[in-house]
Amino acid sequence: MARYDIAIIGTGPAGLEAAVTATVRNKNIILFGNKDLSNKMQVVDHPIKNYLGLPEITGKEMAAAFTKQLEILGIEITETKITSVYAMGEYFALQTADNNMIEADSVILASGVVAGKPYPGEEKFLGRGVSYCATCDAPLYKGKIVAVIGGGANEEAEADFLGEVCEKVYYIPLYKEEPKFTHDNIIVVKEKPQEILGAMKVSTLKTDQNEYDVACVFILREAQFPGQLVPGLATEGSAVKVDLMMNTNIPGLFAAGDIAGRPYQYIKAAGQGNTAALSAVEYLDAKRRAK
Amino acid sequence: MARYDIAIIGTGPAGLEAAVTATVRNKNIILFGNKDLSNKMQVVDHPIKNYLGLPEITGKEMAAAFTKQLEILGIEITETKITSVYAMGEYFALQTADNNMIEADSVILASGVVAGKPYPGEEKFLGRGVSYCATCDAPLYKGKIVAVIGGGANEEAEADFLGEVCEKVYYIPLYKEEPKFTHDNIIVVKEKPQEILGAMKVSTLKTDQNEYDVACVFILREAQFPGQLVPGLATEGSAVKVDLMMNTNIPGLFAAGDIAGRPYQYIKAAGQGNTAALSAVEYLDAKRRAK
Repeated sequence: MARYDIAIIGTGPAGLEAAVTATVRNKNIILFGNKDLSNKMQVVDHPIKNYLGLPEITGKEMAAAFTKQLEILGIEITETKITSVYAMGEYFALQTADNNMIEADSVILASGVVAGKPYPGEEKFLGRGVSYCATCDAPLYKGKIVAVIGGGANEEAEADFLGEVCEKVYYIPLYKEEPKFTHDNIIVVKEKPQEILGAMKVSTLKTDQNEYDVACVFILREAQFPGQLVPGLATEGSAVKVDLMMNTNIPGLFAAGDIAGRPYQYIKAAGQGNTAALSAVEYLDAKRRAK
Repeated sequence: MARYDIAIIGTGPAGLEAAVTATVRNKNIILFGNKDLSNKMQVVDHPIKNYLGLPEITGKEMAAAFTKQLEILGIEITETKITSVYAMGEYFALQTADNNMIEADSVILASGVVAGKPYPGEEKFLGRGVSYCATCDAPLYKGKIVAVIGGGANEEAEADFLGEVCEKVYYIPLYKEEPKFTHDNIIVVKEKPQEILGAMKVSTLKTDQNEYDVACVFILREAQFPGQLVPGLATEGSAVKVDLMMNTNIPGLFAAGDIAGRPYQYIKAAGQGNTAALSAVEYLDAKRRAK
């Protein structure tokens, strides 16, 4: 398997700037995210006034400018969700939502910030009826009843796949648009998830209105809590703990942008992406010199 | 005297972004620097590839884009050099090269980084024959022989003023262009300064070729060492010590860009300027709430 120099997770300003800087520094990168960049950026209609060099620009225009720069540098976006990052010592193994493994010598986390906190019971039952990856874990729940908490319309395809495998799927959208599915055993539930209950394993998803007997709750957020994405990663609140060079507590793993804490601003995210990329380059060079 | 909310020192990307963000947040700012922004930016002719959103842009084009943004927001640049910043407890007093005092509730240092180290003897004789401000200290050396180490053509006016006051001025340019003066008692010396010597006070400037008997050495760098600019400021090497929110060890004083350490990159500087401005806004708001 080809091993990348740097895997970059996230296509907001932090991930994009990291990709741009690493490419200018001739590193072999893979960039995971969405081809329309971040959803947040696409919906900003009012002019953003404080991105230095791009005065009075809308989110859409900004995304277009960034996309043009990727094209000039020949940077492609791989539209695969990364569900876990494992530090293997000499390298990192990245698990994709379609159950592949990607190897990279260093990783930059730039996947944004998750609003709110984990649901009560979520962390307790992780791996015992709580899953962040429908494609990965669907086989475990064949013929059973499951729930899906969907953070965005992108997650509907995952739920549709569960509809194929499971007896019944309760789909709880956390967004406004009407979900669309091809399987009619998927029931859209417009309620607010409140708690995940069970004994040894998950038995129930409690909402603000009902309780549902389910064998698994798939929680498909647009971004994951950083500690869930990378086992062993040190965090402070919802943010990855970093220093000024964007180092995390795991050597070779860097974080930038909203995932690294406030302020949540485009230009700050881009600046940190730049620093993270240069720190990764330095890490790779030191590693090669040591051989 | 009017007191500003935020005084920002420096017109590279860090200072400009700090000014832009603070203005968007309705703060009353004063921005010190050069109307042609940073000299470094003006001389970059090759395309800069990794400023996200401005692909393949030269330094000159970048400076033009930044200037346009200042115009849109009505931000003016005050072309006065700040020679010292004093933390007065409740506010900051900024001394200008033409001997005025400016007051501000908070300060953002974004004046870039000084290459190299202080000259041997420089710190020892500070205030006893070493000066960073010709206009301020010229009266002390009336009728005497002095030397000026000039970091850029901007400093020639200061040396010319010394020519008016002093018996003789040795002017040592650290740049290539031919210096121009109106006073003929200014002697251009194209040698490399090496050491400042003396007993209680300065007596001699030693270069790689000669020794000059002088009463004072005026060292007029484009940027100052941060510890010399702000008494009591904690530094690490040539960089101001900051945390992720761009706080320094002095409450209400923030630093961003090259002065806050590596990497020396435009987009990283801009990102830090953004964070520094928002930290200053938060500091000001907390201070007002406490009243």
